[in-house]
Amino acid sequence: MDKVYEDSLELHRKYHGKLEIKSKMPIKNKEDLSLVYTPGVGAVSTEIGNNPNLANEYTLKRNTIAIVSDGSAILGLGNLGPEAAIPVMEGKAVLFKRFANVDAFPICLATQNVDEIVRAVKYIAPVFGGINLEDIAAPHCFEVERKLQKELSIPVMHDDQHGTAVVVLAGMINSLKVLGSAKENVRLVVNGAGAAGATVTKLLARYGFKDITILDSKGPIHKARTDLNPEKTRLAEITNPRNVTGSLAEALKGADIFIGLSKGNILNEAMIKTMNRKSAVFALANPVPEIMPDLAIKAGAFIVATGRSDLPNQVNNVLAFPGIFRGALDNGVIQFNDNMFIAAAEALAAIVAKPDPQRILPSIFEEGIAATVAKAIHN
Amino acid sequence: MDKVYEDSLELHRKYHGKLEIKSKMPIKNKEDLSLVYTPGVGAVSTEIGNNPNLANEYTLKRNTIAIVSDGSAILGLGNLGPEAAIPVMEGKAVLFKRFANVDAFPICLATQNVDEIVRAVKYIAPVFGGINLEDIAAPHCFEVERKLQKELSIPVMHDDQHGTAVVVLAGMINSLKVLGSAKENVRLVVNGAGAAGATVTKLLARYGFKDITILDSKGPIHKARTDLNPEKTRLAEITNPRNVTGSLAEALKGADIFIGLSKGNILNEAMIKTMNRKSAVFALANPVPEIMPDLAIKAGAFIVATGRSDLPNQVNNVLAFPGIFRGALDNGVIQFNDNMFIAAAEALAAIVAKPDPQRILPSIFEEGIAATVAKAIHN
Repeated sequence: MDKVYEDSLELHRKYHGKLEIKSKMPIKNKEDLSLVYTPGVGAVSTEIGNNPNLANEYTLKRNTIAIVSDGSAILGLGNLGPEAAIPVMEGKAVLFKRFANVDAFPICLATQNVDEIVRAVKYIAPVFGGINLEDIAAPHCFEVERKLQKELSIPVMHDDQHGTAVVVLAGMINSLKVLGSAKENVRLVVNGAGAAGATVTKLLARYGFKDITILDSKGPIHKARTDLNPEKTRLAEITNPRNVTGSLAEALKGADIFIGLSKGNILNEAMIKTMNRKSAVFALANPVPEIMPDLAIKAGAFIVATGRSDLPNQVNNVLAFPGIFRGALDNGVIQFNDNMFIAAAEALAAIVAKPDPQRILPSIFEEGIAATVAKAIHN
Repeated sequence: MDKVYEDSLELHRKYHGKLEIKSKMPIKNKEDLSLVYTPGVGAVSTEIGNNPNLANEYTLKRNTIAIVSDGSAILGLGNLGPEAAIPVMEGKAVLFKRFANVDAFPICLATQNVDEIVRAVKYIAPVFGGINLEDIAAPHCFEVERKLQKELSIPVMHDDQHGTAVVVLAGMINSLKVLGSAKENVRLVVNGAGAAGATVTKLLARYGFKDITILDSKGPIHKARTDLNPEKTRLAEITNPRNVTGSLAEALKGADIFIGLSKGNILNEAMIKTMNRKSAVFALANPVPEIMPDLAIKAGAFIVATGRSDLPNQVNNVLAFPGIFRGALDNGVIQFNDNMFIAAAEALAAIVAKPDPQRILPSIFEEGIAATVAKAIHN
């Protein structure tokens, strides 16, 4: 087993989880108790009872979101169930706190049924100022998100979709600068039409990319295919203007940009060589990229990005989600939309003053990233 | 408005709630991230996926409970809805952490339907090591608790019932010592047959008190009454051996102990004078007791206890609930029972080495109370 896995297991065993729930104020005596609990708290409850919106003023709701998962698509590991999702959601909560001072609590559900997930989140919504959906498999995730957005008056976002889309778009914006190309003229190939691939594609199309070919396990999605679910039918309408068919290798010929959001180890040097001369390869499969950066560069790729923290140009959702929810909570956003996500991507891209092939995105430990993203999230 | 209410409102406004969710470990660099999040966390998820019980080893589940309310019976304030319950549940979470290092998260539900409450708690149960039900109105609370205890494999307790019962029983045990009486010989009157009154009565009967008269708003509960719900029918079977009828004043004549768990301001000096010479008056209505201690003592009561922190002999659930859940989490208890609650009450009573009329229970700020109670909660 890799050392990072051994060390992580040991850390989790030692601490028994990563989160604790603390009081913001010390409780030293009866006077403190009478303010945080009875009798004092009765006045707070009475005021909120008269006007439930005051929960945003007087309670943790103001700064607290739920990270909700059904455990159906945990990292790249698949459907391992709700208990197995807990350490991932705890990790995500650690990031929310560290990078944007958002309090986030993991909610891992004992159901994978769309309507039950929706019901469960509606029941617990009063305590939360926002809902971050996480590691829910496609196509269920689309329906869960849509229904919750309709029925709740707090912001709901599936991070695997929109967090990824914001960071990829930011990387694209800076890649265009480095390549000296315009969004209207480049050819993109997106491999993978799950939660991330589908939503990245939609946001790129919305941003103004004109020639995107997206592939699922059966090859390029196009209008003539008869095996498409409603989500993919919608993708067929906004992509593939040249009606590309065939294999991934064929789709890549003459492409400027590759974005991999599915399986690792599916590209080789020969395939990269068929791309345009100045190409960008976003090999984002985790933990094994579609192609290792050194090979891609050797084959002629000008920019290479991966999802890995040990390689340059890490495309990592943590560049986006803490700031997105920070902004929503601070700016009273009750529904996210694509304009906000595009603004967030532009703000994120602009943090890198002079993008170059080795630096198309900032590192997550640079100061002020979440605050910059947060400013872009407003009504 | 009283100063304590003004100060509490100001405190809640200033801090925007009382809880925050923190990481137990600092996140300083990419190496830290790779252990708490991807890729390291993948190994933890995989192990839990193979054996969901390992969530108790590797995640916050080990030390975290939910405080669940539907907002139907908030403090003495009534049905104010889920948002109004949040500050109370946050306060309770502060106490759990302060007194027993239990991490507790408030879950306030957007439903007051028994089956929906049960369903909601079942959905979110994977993350929690226990469920503290709170401020749920009777008789719904009995059914919610019973169903959840049946369907979940983590401990479930309605604190308004059992936390209160443990502390009252502890107070009774020490009152008997002070009065020099035996549980088999004393007459008790319990006013109020809601969540607290009903369960206090059942635990006292189980402990061995033989002559308890419990009153609801219609007077003493007895077998001949035709207006009793199933919960009260059960109470009629185990109480009122002398078939007392009539008013509270009549029930009090010759009684040794009064326990008030309903409305305040319902006793007067004349009523106290009809009790036995050496009597104990537990005037636990909050914030206004059934009778103020000075009046009760003037009328001849030997021991007076209230729910208030500004008077001697405070009967406060916080003496019990932190230790009860600390014990359940540490000792692998998956179902509470009356034997545990009696053991907890005995342990709590024993903390006071020499009980006297001014000191029948310890103060909550004395060291080691939760640890002592926790030891009593085991299989």
